Amino acid sequence: MYLTDKKVVVLGAAGMIGSNLVQDLLSTGTASRIVMYDPFEKGLQGAAEEIYHCAYPGARVTWTTAMAEALDGASYIISSGGAPRKEGMTREDLLRGNCEIARNLGEDIKKYCPEVEFVIIIFNPADITGLTALVHSGLKPGHVTTLAALDSTRLQTRLMQFFNVAQDEVTGCRTFGGHGEKMAVFKGEIAIQGVKLTEILNSGATVNGKGMSQEEWAEVQEHVRNGGAKIIQLRGRSSFQSPSHQSVEMLRGRIQSGGYPWPCGVYFKEGEFAHVMMAADAEFTGDGLKGHIPQGDAEDMAALRDSYEHLKKLRDEIIQIGLLPPVDEWNRVNPNL
Amino acid sequence: MYLTDKKVVVLGAAGMIGSNLVQDLLSTGTASRIVMYDPFEKGLQGAAEEIYHCAYPGARVTWTTAMAEALDGASYIISSGGAPRKEGMTREDLLRGNCEIARNLGEDIKKYCPEVEFVIIIFNPADITGLTALVHSGLKPGHVTTLAALDSTRLQTRLMQFFNVAQDEVTGCRTFGGHGEKMAVFKGEIAIQGVKLTEILNSGATVNGKGMSQEEWAEVQEHVRNGGAKIIQLRGRSSFQSPSHQSVEMLRGRIQSGGYPWPCGVYFKEGEFAHVMMAADAEFTGDGLKGHIPQGDAEDMAALRDSYEHLKKLRDEIIQIGLLPPVDEWNRVNPNL
Repeated sequence: MYLTDKKVVVLGAAGMIGSNLVQDLLSTGTASRIVMYDPFEKGLQGAAEEIYHCAYPGARVTWTTAMAEALDGASYIISSGGAPRKEGMTREDLLRGNCEIARNLGEDIKKYCPEVEFVIIIFNPADITGLTALVHSGLKPGHVTTLAALDSTRLQTRLMQFFNVAQDEVTGCRTFGGHGEKMAVFKGEIAIQGVKLTEILNSGATVNGKGMSQEEWAEVQEHVRNGGAKIIQLRGRSSFQSPSHQSVEMLRGRIQSGGYPWPCGVYFKEGEFAHVMMAADAEFTGDGLKGHIPQGDAEDMAALRDSYEHLKKLRDEIIQIGLLPPVDEWNRVNPNL
Repeated sequence: MYLTDKKVVVLGAAGMIGSNLVQDLLSTGTASRIVMYDPFEKGLQGAAEEIYHCAYPGARVTWTTAMAEALDGASYIISSGGAPRKEGMTREDLLRGNCEIARNLGEDIKKYCPEVEFVIIIFNPADITGLTALVHSGLKPGHVTTLAALDSTRLQTRLMQFFNVAQDEVTGCRTFGGHGEKMAVFKGEIAIQGVKLTEILNSGATVNGKGMSQEEWAEVQEHVRNGGAKIIQLRGRSSFQSPSHQSVEMLRGRIQSGGYPWPCGVYFKEGEFAHVMMAADAEFTGDGLKGHIPQGDAEDMAALRDSYEHLKKLRDEIIQIGLLPPVDEWNRVNPNL
């Protein structure tokens, strides 16, 4: 009835993302055995009660404010347990507080569930919180990832709206690198009703009688870069349904060893993009995920390098603060890095 | 990929229940073609964007602030489009405002989608808003229902917690009549791990080494009666995940002509419980739902009659206000009644 009966832990389960996550794990038939953790007991109990009142057949949902109890025997962890982003804040404003939470989470994983199979970090700035959790957890890089799909699904959405087509007629949308203003929007694989975006931009091809100028493409990218802020402006709260659902889809990809179509947060041990966690092409295998360095034209690759530099700067801030050791000492904390 | 590709309209789609409904319709694989309606354009657009960012394959989701456009060609309608219940309010406080909305909805259905197959009314007090919408819609009684499951799932939850068993080991939980303080909690069919509650209460049977006194049973019922208020107290907002998910389950029952296990809002044309809408046993058929008068012991039936009297009083208030015609004139507005 469910894809897995292994223990799935949702951290931050009293929050908007976390409580939605639990519902979506059950509604999609993904996981039956869920532990809801949050330090805020009252809200957690209320969120758990709501899930009970949904009456999912076969569900085994419990809640706890004790991290050790939550993590004990966990197979999968999805953590939305950071401080939320408020209107006007950039993701980077959240850096310090949430990286401290991420370091604690990494240490708790090492202590309480070193055998965990897969950890998905959602809380912002996810690139850096995911990296921080990975380093301190002692886990293999393929066992820790971050939600990295939303910029790409926002790009797909914007192009759907621009060309007035069905959403899944827009294919190949991929943004790589970081998630902030420095994300790298790759255009090479994008097609609308099968027509390559590059042909639309460079050769005047049209879809639904509509072309797209370079200025309009720049506007689309700008729109995507501000996608998160736009949700806050429209709804008066940061996005929670899409991060939740895409995290569930990632977990499904992990359990099924494939079939997840969007970029994921990937840690590269070596090569040009080493020692950060960034959105990249990823392949789900029986042992977590395997990243691939994105391929694009000179302009796209330059954007990715720029984004990588930005991520390194954020990482170095965290090292400076003391929440991460210097890069060349990481393998003392985590021999897998 | 989805149970239906027919048009499903979600009214109140900018709200907490409505936006969750859209997500749950998609995550459960129930409906692909959804129109989100709400008068609040900004919030509606934000909610729609979130759904797009979820990137459900095969989904065709649109949004509109125009009721005529929303309802045109609708096969199914789920309406959470009332004013929300705030802390300290009883459901009855909402009576007048929401019944006006319900009357308008009924008239709009008659005008724009008289062929609609099934309408589920969620907004409170649902017994009366559902009745008001039914009368004005001109639809058959089996084509309009209200969400009536949550009191029963709350009862199941409370008994699960009391006996410390799995949720679906508590079976036969049913509350009938109204949803307010006057709900009738029927005990005859309830069993915990197969042990009848009546045997536990009357013959000292135990489950998990635990019995239940009449006082404890009274406390359980009291807890259930205050279930909605308890969620508000714990979460600072009224329940939205459970009403949303159970509404989706009802629609699945309708589409599949069966399989929905909880009470539904039913209108009886004749007999002892005629001319209100109340929680009753219901059977999903190819032509909507067919209600059955609940059967219980003398105590349970007395509670149901009491609840029915309360619903009639609420109904008569609405007639007094002028939002419903007198009962003997209903068939002029709706020949199916």
